[in-house]
Amino acid sequence: MKIEGRDSRSVWIEPDGWSVGIFDQRRLPWAIERLVLRTVEDAAVAIADMATRGAPLIGAVAAYGLALGLRADPGDSALEQAYARLLRTRPTAVNLRWALDRMRRRVARLAPDERAAVAYAQAAIICDEDVSMNHAIGQAGLPLIEAIAARKGGAPVNILTHCNAGWLATVAWGTATAPLYLAQQAGIAIHVWVDETRPRNQGALTALELTQHGVPHSYIVDNAGGLLMQRGEVDMVIVGTDRVTANGDVCNKIGTYLKALAARAHDVPFFVALPDGTYDPATATGADVEIEDRAGDEVAFMNGADTEGQPITVALTRSATINPAFDITPASLVTAYITAKGVVSDAGELADLSG
Amino acid sequence: MKIEGRDSRSVWIEPDGWSVGIFDQRRLPWAIERLVLRTVEDAAVAIADMATRGAPLIGAVAAYGLALGLRADPGDSALEQAYARLLRTRPTAVNLRWALDRMRRRVARLAPDERAAVAYAQAAIICDEDVSMNHAIGQAGLPLIEAIAARKGGAPVNILTHCNAGWLATVAWGTATAPLYLAQQAGIAIHVWVDETRPRNQGALTALELTQHGVPHSYIVDNAGGLLMQRGEVDMVIVGTDRVTANGDVCNKIGTYLKALAARAHDVPFFVALPDGTYDPATATGADVEIEDRAGDEVAFMNGADTEGQPITVALTRSATINPAFDITPASLVTAYITAKGVVSDAGELADLSG
Repeated sequence: MKIEGRDSRSVWIEPDGWSVGIFDQRRLPWAIERLVLRTVEDAAVAIADMATRGAPLIGAVAAYGLALGLRADPGDSALEQAYARLLRTRPTAVNLRWALDRMRRRVARLAPDERAAVAYAQAAIICDEDVSMNHAIGQAGLPLIEAIAARKGGAPVNILTHCNAGWLATVAWGTATAPLYLAQQAGIAIHVWVDETRPRNQGALTALELTQHGVPHSYIVDNAGGLLMQRGEVDMVIVGTDRVTANGDVCNKIGTYLKALAARAHDVPFFVALPDGTYDPATATGADVEIEDRAGDEVAFMNGADTEGQPITVALTRSATINPAFDITPASLVTAYITAKGVVSDAGELADLSG
Repeated sequence: MKIEGRDSRSVWIEPDGWSVGIFDQRRLPWAIERLVLRTVEDAAVAIADMATRGAPLIGAVAAYGLALGLRADPGDSALEQAYARLLRTRPTAVNLRWALDRMRRRVARLAPDERAAVAYAQAAIICDEDVSMNHAIGQAGLPLIEAIAARKGGAPVNILTHCNAGWLATVAWGTATAPLYLAQQAGIAIHVWVDETRPRNQGALTALELTQHGVPHSYIVDNAGGLLMQRGEVDMVIVGTDRVTANGDVCNKIGTYLKALAARAHDVPFFVALPDGTYDPATATGADVEIEDRAGDEVAFMNGADTEGQPITVALTRSATINPAFDITPASLVTAYITAKGVVSDAGELADLSG
């Protein structure tokens, strides 16, 4: 992916051949700064302090963190310590545990002197798989954009997205953004409406990604999407998801549901980019999903930059706040799910794909 | 209305009997500071710099501004100069022109030495009328809250509101907030969900009002209302309006429409507090309303307070923004309009009331 004009993933091996590079996402979008991770502790701190973020990316960084640990000490007890240290950084992140379990399974039976090299290779496989999967989501979604572009006779296709389901949250391409990047590569004119996504303003990250790739876009407040649809200025919505339940209900960043309601009211197609492992047939419906309540300070305060681009925090209210992180978009409002295996329009097909 | 435990309107005559007091709303909600206006220029600067805001309140302050001018010089040319100076502060504010025209008509035919006293009296009448009208809206809306409270057996009635249609935007009571304050006075348990209302965060003013009156409330991001309705945690929505068209469509702060869609999806009644003069039978439908596009910097930057409560501004993105100020809620999504003459549920009745 492009950043400062250069191709990059969101995690990489440094030129020394063993240390691990990431972007310091706490400084984005104001400064593009890279961090070099050389120890398990470096990786754990980067994840815990949210220098790196996004479920797939956290898994990938943790995998490399384990490799870093095995390079320093490949013994059994060091392996267990590294595993435990990395796991406790973000205890509820499903991808983190998945990646660490996969790494440990792969190396545990090996002789210690074989472990580090295999761990690096396995971490690279985890990264490559994420890239391939997101690229496949992009290829599945591209025809949806092409069809609208054809209908509009080449006028820009206006695509609304919410939160950051972009390449900065994955290893490359992103989920909801992969079809956008492939559309741009294919020479299709697009314009992206980027929801700010209060309270954490992940829209600023999406806007940064699109800026770096030269994709035309506008950053809008979360309140604006309804009016834009009233005016016919939204051709499609693409969002990511944290979990899709057995019946197709979509758990995603708070505010997604309001856009889905507006899309339905205006016959705007509403698509959900669904990476492997996010369909959860064990949970029957969205009503069964426990919604994470985050700290109210995320609402009462807002982070941004001062006139020199340095991070500052501004207080917005002294009143009590509540801060539910997700809402549920019922399956009935979803036009289709864009998966790495193709576009499917109902939950029954999702079950077939994942089976 | 209560502020720091004392009863107050949002504009008043100081103890000297002639100078005019207002709150400096630029400092709210962080500091409650009062300004004393002694000249036409003081009043004009206060309006132009948004030290005072809200359509009804601007009209009232301008009326007193004219009285201040006539006190200093009651001659014809001073009257015209004061009128012109005050009018050009906010050229698109309908209430401002209405109040100034009414003041000028009242005093122009009088002998100069009679003008100042009559102007003060007329300004007081304009204020009292606003207070009475808002109080009447509150009395009309109170039974709607009482009915829900009765149904809930005394459990708090959860009321969601968007923007600040509160007493700080009027002389007292507010429009959408008047029923809330009367419900509290009547001993009905209520809890208010206060939408932040990006980009200008007028929810912080509503939250301040409610804090000062001891009304239980929570400040929430604009994205949260859909989830709250999914959970059954919203019993009714009450919003203000800038204009209601002949067919009953409601032009109000951007984001109102998304809440109206969600309310309909969950059978939550959606009420519009409608002050006199806001029904506009000359405009057929919401599609005929030109939506004000405000400066994009209101989206790219956010105002708040630093750790000492001093005002600071934080940058959120470097990307392009758009900033439409209003959206249209179609009449079909409005349960009823709460007017000073009673609650009416369709536009035909509005036309009768205003006729």
